[in-house]
Amino acid sequence: MRNNALVYAQTHRSEALDGLQELLRIPSISTLPECQPEMQRAAQWLVDKLTAIGFEHLAIMATAGHPVVYGDWLHADPSAPTLLIYGHYDVQPADPLDEWLSPPFEPMIKGDKIYARGADDNKGQLYTHVAALEAYLKSDGRLPLNVKLLIEGEEEIGSPSLGNFIRAHTDLLKADAAVISDTHMPAPDKPIIVSGVRGLAYMEVSLRGSSHDLHSGMYGGAVENPLNAMVKMLASLHDENGRVTIPNFYDKVLPLTPAEREIFNNGLITEKTVMAETGAPALWGEKGYSVAEWLGARPTLDIHGIKGGFIGEGQKTVIPAVVSAKVSMRLVPNQNAAEIAELFSQHIQRIAPKTMELSIKKYSAENGAVVDTSSVAIEAAVQAFEQGFGTRAIFMREGGSLPVVTMFSQILQVPVVMMGFGLPDDAIHAPNEQFHLPNFYQGIETAIHYYDIFGQQTLLLV
Amino acid sequence: MRNNALVYAQTHRSEALDGLQELLRIPSISTLPECQPEMQRAAQWLVDKLTAIGFEHLAIMATAGHPVVYGDWLHADPSAPTLLIYGHYDVQPADPLDEWLSPPFEPMIKGDKIYARGADDNKGQLYTHVAALEAYLKSDGRLPLNVKLLIEGEEEIGSPSLGNFIRAHTDLLKADAAVISDTHMPAPDKPIIVSGVRGLAYMEVSLRGSSHDLHSGMYGGAVENPLNAMVKMLASLHDENGRVTIPNFYDKVLPLTPAEREIFNNGLITEKTVMAETGAPALWGEKGYSVAEWLGARPTLDIHGIKGGFIGEGQKTVIPAVVSAKVSMRLVPNQNAAEIAELFSQHIQRIAPKTMELSIKKYSAENGAVVDTSSVAIEAAVQAFEQGFGTRAIFMREGGSLPVVTMFSQILQVPVVMMGFGLPDDAIHAPNEQFHLPNFYQGIETAIHYYDIFGQQTLLLV
Repeated sequence: MRNNALVYAQTHRSEALDGLQELLRIPSISTLPECQPEMQRAAQWLVDKLTAIGFEHLAIMATAGHPVVYGDWLHADPSAPTLLIYGHYDVQPADPLDEWLSPPFEPMIKGDKIYARGADDNKGQLYTHVAALEAYLKSDGRLPLNVKLLIEGEEEIGSPSLGNFIRAHTDLLKADAAVISDTHMPAPDKPIIVSGVRGLAYMEVSLRGSSHDLHSGMYGGAVENPLNAMVKMLASLHDENGRVTIPNFYDKVLPLTPAEREIFNNGLITEKTVMAETGAPALWGEKGYSVAEWLGARPTLDIHGIKGGFIGEGQKTVIPAVVSAKVSMRLVPNQNAAEIAELFSQHIQRIAPKTMELSIKKYSAENGAVVDTSSVAIEAAVQAFEQGFGTRAIFMREGGSLPVVTMFSQILQVPVVMMGFGLPDDAIHAPNEQFHLPNFYQGIETAIHYYDIFGQQTLLLV
Repeated sequence: MRNNALVYAQTHRSEALDGLQELLRIPSISTLPECQPEMQRAAQWLVDKLTAIGFEHLAIMATAGHPVVYGDWLHADPSAPTLLIYGHYDVQPADPLDEWLSPPFEPMIKGDKIYARGADDNKGQLYTHVAALEAYLKSDGRLPLNVKLLIEGEEEIGSPSLGNFIRAHTDLLKADAAVISDTHMPAPDKPIIVSGVRGLAYMEVSLRGSSHDLHSGMYGGAVENPLNAMVKMLASLHDENGRVTIPNFYDKVLPLTPAEREIFNNGLITEKTVMAETGAPALWGEKGYSVAEWLGARPTLDIHGIKGGFIGEGQKTVIPAVVSAKVSMRLVPNQNAAEIAELFSQHIQRIAPKTMELSIKKYSAENGAVVDTSSVAIEAAVQAFEQGFGTRAIFMREGGSLPVVTMFSQILQVPVVMMGFGLPDDAIHAPNEQFHLPNFYQGIETAIHYYDIFGQQTLLLV
């Protein structure tokens, strides 16, 4: 164990926190066109920071969408392995703004939490690596292994450009393992290594019922209201057992083996924990499965917003001309996201009212993935967590989607390690997003241990 | 016929148009709390204008909500009748703002149309009376009958304070007939006297599923999404025949007699005319009824907007904590609006998911009404239209709601004349609201004829 880096990290926590706060102040919301300059600013901030700590070949690399930040340090022993570290500098929109207790891009520290959009997802988690690398380079002047950093700007919009970017730069990104800190653990004393992520197909459906908004008194009951029609269509997408009704939706879902069910139902995710984390008075899901299976092993369909009509204060008796709904489906390994997007579109075309103009837009379609938990890279993570958090990590599939996992596995054919430091109540994607500072500091130390342990295991790999 | 007033009106059209434009520039949106000062400004503008043309006892009279403007001219022959003229100075919200071709509160004249929020509903229609009264007083110095003006500020929010106001001022408002110009005719050569209006119950339903917005990857499939639940609930409010499924909803709806059906299906409102007016590619309504019956004789239920989640550009995978939907029901005569609001609430309580916190708000509940088409006051309107538009008006029930009709009939027990000058493509409640200027000018002349004819018929009334 290289004590120097660890000591440096432990004695420079406030500097790490300062750096994170600088990054959090940049509203790099990838989905909003007006935030384009902020995206550039966040990328440039990372380039400057990584250059300052001793990284090389820093570049803001163009893609079809937001750019990727790349940088590396490749001066380790010739036998040392190369680690690819992934993170993303883009964040979710901050609305509803009026529910934030402090402005989303003015980080607030209160107790052992830091509050800001991106505090956890992913600026906070990404920064554990930045600080860990800095600790090594500022104390020892070198790293125990070669490191390449790939920090993308489109994770929150489904990573539409990342696949092409990786395919175009397979040599540049070549590595022995990839590590991603963008997942969470059920509690600070229960570290998790994520063994699978769900895929995502994100769609928007629009219905036009008339050429202009109508007065419901003049036309209600004769011209079909697109809102009435939209709710009917969306409601029909689930049956009474909570199953998605799109034909062939479940065709490629692999049944769970008894051994897999045992892993899922290990007691870490229960009705009680989920109700406590969400404040939901009761849970609801597909019949025949447990809450842990709902979250890790079953595909889902969710409506995210319905636009059209009047949602201001008071009453307005309008029949909107156009209504649109955003809908996404979380997919499990072996489901093909592009295929599911197509099944969704076909089904909507079948059930949409013939009285209206229909349009369907696909925002993203990314497959889910499972990782090989027996790899040396994963074993090193188990040991690193044991050092950093003082307890053995368990494997768990995660409900969220990380398109990059599939891309790294399939394109770079590299073992992927999901070693996340978030907590369930970090409110990612919601108002008052936060990061638990003890997890931030232990995350930095776990990263330091990981570089050290994985660096030593080189010979096994080669 | 008093040619003086008519000649004055015909030679002072541009002054009338100027006056209307001044009123249209005031954004008196009753439903928006921030427009409170504009409401006062609109009321004061009317007081000043009516004072200037010779009206007396002008007052901005307080109610529990927005004030009522009152004024009168009571110097007609002792045997002359008294006419109560009703209008409203409040308008609908202007959103969606980006669909307006010119700013909603900067009136634009293009061809034979004037465009602005309120151009038809109701500032333009109300102003036909202001200009007609001005024509009499400026030419003859007197009116052929006594006139009381009641101009309210809450019509677009369901007239919640008007009933109490009328009850508190029955002596002040005592009249032999009431005239309301707030309805429309199918075409400029097809004047209509409205013989019935629908009632309205306007509700808002909210569902809370969790204490904060959730990430659909982390919790999708286990915590019920309030948007998923809301669409299911709303979709269930209609059956496959277009009927509302709320138990007992139709109990008090009177069946149409063959004679009534004949009047409805007189060929003025057909699938073709409604499709042309709305741009809807097809129509949709309750099975077993014609389009004219859908609009005039059958109750309906419409969703006006669903709030919660993300409706911006791009994708956000949020499960909103709270979702709310605005829903209104148009009711036909004999249905009781308060009772229907209660049936709605009870039904929603029954069908709402037990996994969520439900709340229901009632915005307004006003009964529909039919008027006695054989009254002298109505007969005078038939003759006035014949003079003003050169053709005989027909009776027709209207799909919209005018709570004041019920209030005048029941509280003041006065015959109500709905003599409107709007057209179906005036886009009231929608972007680019407009008023057909020939209808504006003919409306002024029809009002002049009406005062004259009804003034002469006095002796029959007394």
